[in-house]
Amino acid sequence: MISVVLLGAGNVATHLYKAFSKAEGISVTQWYNRTLASISSYTNEVDTTDSLSELKEADIYILAVSDDSISQLSKDLPFKNRLVAHTSGSVSMHDLDKKNQIAVFYPLQTFSKDTDVNFSEVPICIEAHQKENFKVLKNIAKAVGCKSHKIYTDQRQELHLAAVFVNNFTNQLYRIGHEICETKNIEFDILRPLIQETAKKIKDISPYMAQTGPAKRNDKKTIKRHLKLIENEEHKAIYKLLTTSIKKTHGQR
Amino acid sequence: MISVVLLGAGNVATHLYKAFSKAEGISVTQWYNRTLASISSYTNEVDTTDSLSELKEADIYILAVSDDSISQLSKDLPFKNRLVAHTSGSVSMHDLDKKNQIAVFYPLQTFSKDTDVNFSEVPICIEAHQKENFKVLKNIAKAVGCKSHKIYTDQRQELHLAAVFVNNFTNQLYRIGHEICETKNIEFDILRPLIQETAKKIKDISPYMAQTGPAKRNDKKTIKRHLKLIENEEHKAIYKLLTTSIKKTHGQR
Repeated sequence: MISVVLLGAGNVATHLYKAFSKAEGISVTQWYNRTLASISSYTNEVDTTDSLSELKEADIYILAVSDDSISQLSKDLPFKNRLVAHTSGSVSMHDLDKKNQIAVFYPLQTFSKDTDVNFSEVPICIEAHQKENFKVLKNIAKAVGCKSHKIYTDQRQELHLAAVFVNNFTNQLYRIGHEICETKNIEFDILRPLIQETAKKIKDISPYMAQTGPAKRNDKKTIKRHLKLIENEEHKAIYKLLTTSIKKTHGQR
Repeated sequence: MISVVLLGAGNVATHLYKAFSKAEGISVTQWYNRTLASISSYTNEVDTTDSLSELKEADIYILAVSDDSISQLSKDLPFKNRLVAHTSGSVSMHDLDKKNQIAVFYPLQTFSKDTDVNFSEVPICIEAHQKENFKVLKNIAKAVGCKSHKIYTDQRQELHLAAVFVNNFTNQLYRIGHEICETKNIEFDILRPLIQETAKKIKDISPYMAQTGPAKRNDKKTIKRHLKLIENEEHKAIYKLLTTSIKKTHGQR
């Protein structure tokens, strides 16, 4: 049984808490947050606290807090030589105070408050110094049904960057599709199956192989017609830039 | 029973043929292509021809050919006053020769040669002049298990544009994610669950609600760190433009 103290109350912390409390092999010893109000609905099932001096002993302390708070919170921990991990995609492991044994437990997924995540499909990027700490991180990932990957800080930061492209930016393209539909009184629902299929293709084939459309074919007539159709200047700039990018990838000019 | 003559042998034509031949209520009378070689593997199951003068009588002629060929092919048809539909997202219905009754049957989906498509989830955008022709188009969609939507030319062209954003451009963002991983020796597989989840969210909530990440939070530190990390100038330009777009959408500056 691995005992965990969880720190933080954002989306990642909440999803981790739910996954941990369901997992065999993990016990959540305590849940800390600066303000108790955000975790007050869990006081019946887990020991909660807003006081760092009251933190209990555990195998690992997981800091699921905002990037900017990680360093300071790790300094404020009133103990040393214990295993302390953060969950950030972009913060270096070495931002954690070295009085403890430092580590990273980064779940590469998008967490929203209102959407449940199937944790068994979340890849966990883990990083640590000692072999035994790697084992703890790996076992936690395993207990919640996830694959873990040894990923060092510089690679993790690149992954986080790549995640912004395939997640945040992709979602913004959905948003632009939504805006185009709205302006012309078309139901956005008509686009939803296409969005699903676009992602589904990537389960089996590479994005290179999956590409279709006017830019890949260098269909100048359609591209010109589209540019004429777009009224929003920002959408136009995005259209031009991504069309050029696709053309380059597929050897058109 | 609706009899169909299919013209063309590209991805859309092939997927339509497969869906039609499985559907009760549709019989494919004939399959035409300029060159027989591309449809030669189907000669045992369907009457094929490469000669327009040999075209048989049918309830509808579906021109699933490239945008640039639609107009000429419709002129070359050796009959008049029959129902003729094209399958393009961007070509006007009126590009079809008016000697026949013109229509559009546009399946809004991405079709690749090697990927099977669950046709029952494909929205079909239909357009016609006469009520009875609408009925034929609607019944064909129904027979292959699809929802149909009355969408007129100008709306269809906007939908096609929106589809380029949510499909081709999204796929290019996947490609950029792939490139970032490749450069740093990271398995792209680690990103695949995130790609699926990003699309899955959109089944239930709007892209506006689904947005997360540094641009939405206006997390300047992370954005700066990312921009420093990106070596490829084109990727950098895309990062900047989409970050600005997200900020605007979510009222950041």
